[in-house]
Amino acid sequence: MFTRTAMSMKDIVNDLLNATIDTEEDFYRTFDLWGIDPLWHEKDDEGNDHVIDWIGFWRYPGRKRMDNGTMSFDGETLLPQGIYMQFDITGRDKSKWALLGVLYGDEYYTSIDDFRTAWQSPDFKKYTPNMGGRWVETDPTGEGLPLEDRPPPMSVQPGGQRFKVDNHNKYVEWMDFSFYLTFTRDTGMRLYDIRFQGQRIIYELGLQEAIAHYAGNDPVQSGTSYLDSFYGFGPYAFSQVPGYDMPIYAHCLNTSFHASELSKSHRCGISIFETEVNHPIQRHSTQSYVSVTKNIALIVRSISTIGNYDYIFDYNFYLDGTIETVVRASGYIQTAYYAKNDDYGYHIHDGLSGSMHDHILNYKVDFDILGTSNTMVKHVFEPVEVQYKWHKSPRNTMHIVRKEVESEDDSKMNWSHNAQEQVLVVNKDATNQFGEPRGYKIMPSRGGAGIHLTIVNSNNLLNSAAFATNAYYVTKYKDNEMRSASAWNNYDTANPLINFDKFFDGDRLVQEDLVLWFNLGMHHVPHTGDLPNTVFTTAQSGMILTPHNYLSGDPSRQSIQQIRIDYDGDEVSDVYTFGSEPATGRIDLDDLYWNPYTYGGDVAVRKFPYDRECGKNQILAWPAAK
Amino acid sequence: MFTRTAMSMKDIVNDLLNATIDTEEDFYRTFDLWGIDPLWHEKDDEGNDHVIDWIGFWRYPGRKRMDNGTMSFDGETLLPQGIYMQFDITGRDKSKWALLGVLYGDEYYTSIDDFRTAWQSPDFKKYTPNMGGRWVETDPTGEGLPLEDRPPPMSVQPGGQRFKVDNHNKYVEWMDFSFYLTFTRDTGMRLYDIRFQGQRIIYELGLQEAIAHYAGNDPVQSGTSYLDSFYGFGPYAFSQVPGYDMPIYAHCLNTSFHASELSKSHRCGISIFETEVNHPIQRHSTQSYVSVTKNIALIVRSISTIGNYDYIFDYNFYLDGTIETVVRASGYIQTAYYAKNDDYGYHIHDGLSGSMHDHILNYKVDFDILGTSNTMVKHVFEPVEVQYKWHKSPRNTMHIVRKEVESEDDSKMNWSHNAQEQVLVVNKDATNQFGEPRGYKIMPSRGGAGIHLTIVNSNNLLNSAAFATNAYYVTKYKDNEMRSASAWNNYDTANPLINFDKFFDGDRLVQEDLVLWFNLGMHHVPHTGDLPNTVFTTAQSGMILTPHNYLSGDPSRQSIQQIRIDYDGDEVSDVYTFGSEPATGRIDLDDLYWNPYTYGGDVAVRKFPYDRECGKNQILAWPAAK
Repeated sequence: MFTRTAMSMKDIVNDLLNATIDTEEDFYRTFDLWGIDPLWHEKDDEGNDHVIDWIGFWRYPGRKRMDNGTMSFDGETLLPQGIYMQFDITGRDKSKWALLGVLYGDEYYTSIDDFRTAWQSPDFKKYTPNMGGRWVETDPTGEGLPLEDRPPPMSVQPGGQRFKVDNHNKYVEWMDFSFYLTFTRDTGMRLYDIRFQGQRIIYELGLQEAIAHYAGNDPVQSGTSYLDSFYGFGPYAFSQVPGYDMPIYAHCLNTSFHASELSKSHRCGISIFETEVNHPIQRHSTQSYVSVTKNIALIVRSISTIGNYDYIFDYNFYLDGTIETVVRASGYIQTAYYAKNDDYGYHIHDGLSGSMHDHILNYKVDFDILGTSNTMVKHVFEPVEVQYKWHKSPRNTMHIVRKEVESEDDSKMNWSHNAQEQVLVVNKDATNQFGEPRGYKIMPSRGGAGIHLTIVNSNNLLNSAAFATNAYYVTKYKDNEMRSASAWNNYDTANPLINFDKFFDGDRLVQEDLVLWFNLGMHHVPHTGDLPNTVFTTAQSGMILTPHNYLSGDPSRQSIQQIRIDYDGDEVSDVYTFGSEPATGRIDLDDLYWNPYTYGGDVAVRKFPYDRECGKNQILAWPAAK
Repeated sequence: MFTRTAMSMKDIVNDLLNATIDTEEDFYRTFDLWGIDPLWHEKDDEGNDHVIDWIGFWRYPGRKRMDNGTMSFDGETLLPQGIYMQFDITGRDKSKWALLGVLYGDEYYTSIDDFRTAWQSPDFKKYTPNMGGRWVETDPTGEGLPLEDRPPPMSVQPGGQRFKVDNHNKYVEWMDFSFYLTFTRDTGMRLYDIRFQGQRIIYELGLQEAIAHYAGNDPVQSGTSYLDSFYGFGPYAFSQVPGYDMPIYAHCLNTSFHASELSKSHRCGISIFETEVNHPIQRHSTQSYVSVTKNIALIVRSISTIGNYDYIFDYNFYLDGTIETVVRASGYIQTAYYAKNDDYGYHIHDGLSGSMHDHILNYKVDFDILGTSNTMVKHVFEPVEVQYKWHKSPRNTMHIVRKEVESEDDSKMNWSHNAQEQVLVVNKDATNQFGEPRGYKIMPSRGGAGIHLTIVNSNNLLNSAAFATNAYYVTKYKDNEMRSASAWNNYDTANPLINFDKFFDGDRLVQEDLVLWFNLGMHHVPHTGDLPNTVFTTAQSGMILTPHNYLSGDPSRQSIQQIRIDYDGDEVSDVYTFGSEPATGRIDLDDLYWNPYTYGGDVAVRKFPYDRECGKNQILAWPAAK
């Protein structure tokens, strides 16, 4: 119906969009029609519910989509055409669907006839259409960068793999950490039973939902608030590219998910690898010695491309007991047609506006700090004037004020001004030898940790965005509060299957089984540097979960990957490497070559009969040294 | 005098501090005496200025300081002893100096006799002294971590160095960037004339000052507010350790500075190296192709250890035109004696409190965006209710509000709630082809970017902390406003040589030569995990300076270090690597071995006669391919 309606104004389309549409096939080869998400439910005067859709015209780059064998870049979200059609699509009986209106150049017409009349008038204002071209392609441009033909630095693993993986059970042990991985259609990779030094810290850690909420003067941008779990992070966790998405030596796991009544796997949807972080984890110099420890981290990565955007999800493990959750975004932005909308974005190409939007990615952390009796406390840096015994007048200083988050009445929270609140989850009954409660601290580490929605009471998301109103939340664990969102929420955001707001029903939170929910994300007004793709450099967000009075000292001191050099002026007297021998021998780079022609897509998995032997062969074993 | 006074109560010291002091030599071998910083200036009743010092007892770990040939860890800042002495040290005539009081266990005594009387009373409360031991040492402890004896992953550079350095002029060219490095005693490394694609972006970028402001119920912690440039980042920029502080293949520059009427150099005080960031800079997947680009960055690093703390200063350059300023801290914390001070820190060892403190590191960025006529603008995400032509009722949405920072009356600034303000420096007269002003955006990238002092009107810093009251500032460039602080400020903080507050005298800021001043840092309440050393993982802070509508697209698209794989299901049809050949051949790891016995200290440099030939030999040349 949408295409039929669009075809009924092909004369206008050809004129305004610089097209030569004659047949429906021409249309299919040139344009894609899609729009708001989720669909709107609106009541008529009699109180009946109507499902409203607004659809925009998007152009395929280069008209190559249906030309067999010709590759086309995926840049249609850069090519909005500025004509929008409004439909009532209530019910399954298409004959009752109807066109309600057309919008072009911020003028609204209630029929195609009205639109045609306006278009035929001499003072009709035409806007610039967006055409494909080299600018939507990600391949190299320009004359090249100096010395770039030389191979750049790369990470190698001369000692072989230093962690163990049970591929079948997706169980990982690295240094003092162990954990299980799961993978589902809706939210992709999640971690369970994360233990440090044999003691559980976190029962569950993982993504819940990702919102991309746009705004604009056209209904398609204004009406777009993707709830990505509806599309699913699982099905779109494509294989990672060795040497580019991950080091060539990374350990790969398939990502298996169940969708459309079939179990499928993406090969290498999860990569696990150690890396040397490009700064040490500890150092200290004096005039007589220097002590430095390498910063070796384990990274567990999955990458999901939900339509135009590519999300990299990392869980980083560090030797000091820190776990870092990072999300990064690249891929194509979704843009707006440039017409009277400077309030919603920058003019970034011919007829193109970079459509402003918020990314909010909600995560769950089910902490179990030395059991399930936990308390969220805040240790606040506060300025204070104090009269000390040893000084004649009061002094301007600061002190720490210890607070507790006592109930779900006060557990929707934002970061404090100047980051003066430290946020901890502790077990008050498990104090260390000095009487301090053992715990973990949460702390923003990269970019926009804690970012939440700018829009208040979104008409698109209604009761389905309660997890995106604040930086972080804490609730009491309940069996019926497993996730902050449901993939089904997208169908009816006013009446979602899971309304996170209902989790806040006044439960006491002191020494209870606590669940922390935090947001990562960014506010994004795309600029010219987002063309053709957003780069990860500025589109990343991370949260650190780090031990706090948890042990009696820094656990990274166990690492022998450190050096101490004792010296006096120019003279080195002693060198200690503590049994950590430098790598010797040769690395044959040809052995590290990965053949990109082996890059692969889905693997279909038989559900019945289950091949027990296949499972058994994937035993928990130490990797062989290389 | 301090030691003589301390010796006069050696009976008390021996009792309270578990010591066996008999002679002054015993004392020197056991204790170090130092205290507040900066010194206090206090007026007496007649209005005369007095210089007041409070001094604490600190214990050397293991009594080894004066035992020749025995290495001792630098852990005295972990061993405060809880006895504090107050002196009037006005003037250079020591005979007029006087003891004013003694503090122990939060009790103040105005003479040693009073202290002795209290100590001899039966109800005198004794606290736990802090003794050295294994816990202050950074060497490996415990039974070791699994597989840790295998060499970990490392970065190698199979294609050789891909940037050029003029060692003599400290000039660097990498990809689209070029810049000069300088190095001074006060603030260490600074960057000048940073150009991107041949066009200057930044005239000057560098550290101005670092504050470490403590608080506590004892006068030494309460009175400590280090202004580190007083000690100097130059003299303490020790040599970096290859393979630990930097990759073995890093390019080293000496850090030369002038102090005490002598020019000196630290060998390899600056390292410059490329690294592959452990995630790509761009990627996009579809059902038919995947495109990924490597994220190769250039890092310029210096490391300064100012007493107990080791700062790593990085300037990172990325292919998308982004420059990142990062500071990280490790080394020994400065602690407090644990006595009635739970409001100021955690109890972290026997008699030890982790003393709360703020780190504020102030940076200057003298932007020159397409000339010196620049304007700081804020593009703000604001929620708004809008009635659109195409919808029957108003919608809750958001839009961008463009604001300008018009004068120095409004140019002391903090981050907005929920990061809803984008902060840009643009040249309004230099618009791109779409009419948007070209500029650079500043944006927190890691940890506590924008952190400023918790304490309001510090009695220690008085008029010398005006750069630490806000997240960031912008001023009009003036020849007499070159730095936000002076190393001499420490001598008299009420009357500093540079009072940053005086920069704000109402100058107009629209299309002027602007200087941005921003803070990095952290609020730090050390916990057990800071023993023996703070780890860099949680002690880092970074700011990104990134192109914004500056070019017509993402400049990283010039890089050929990318791959495109076209496929259909399992079948790869085409692979493109754009002339970027994978590294081949072998890497001989033995060649990469660095002999730690070559680690070196200062190099003395003759000031006269100047060796012109030596300078000339260091010509600007492309490095040889390896």
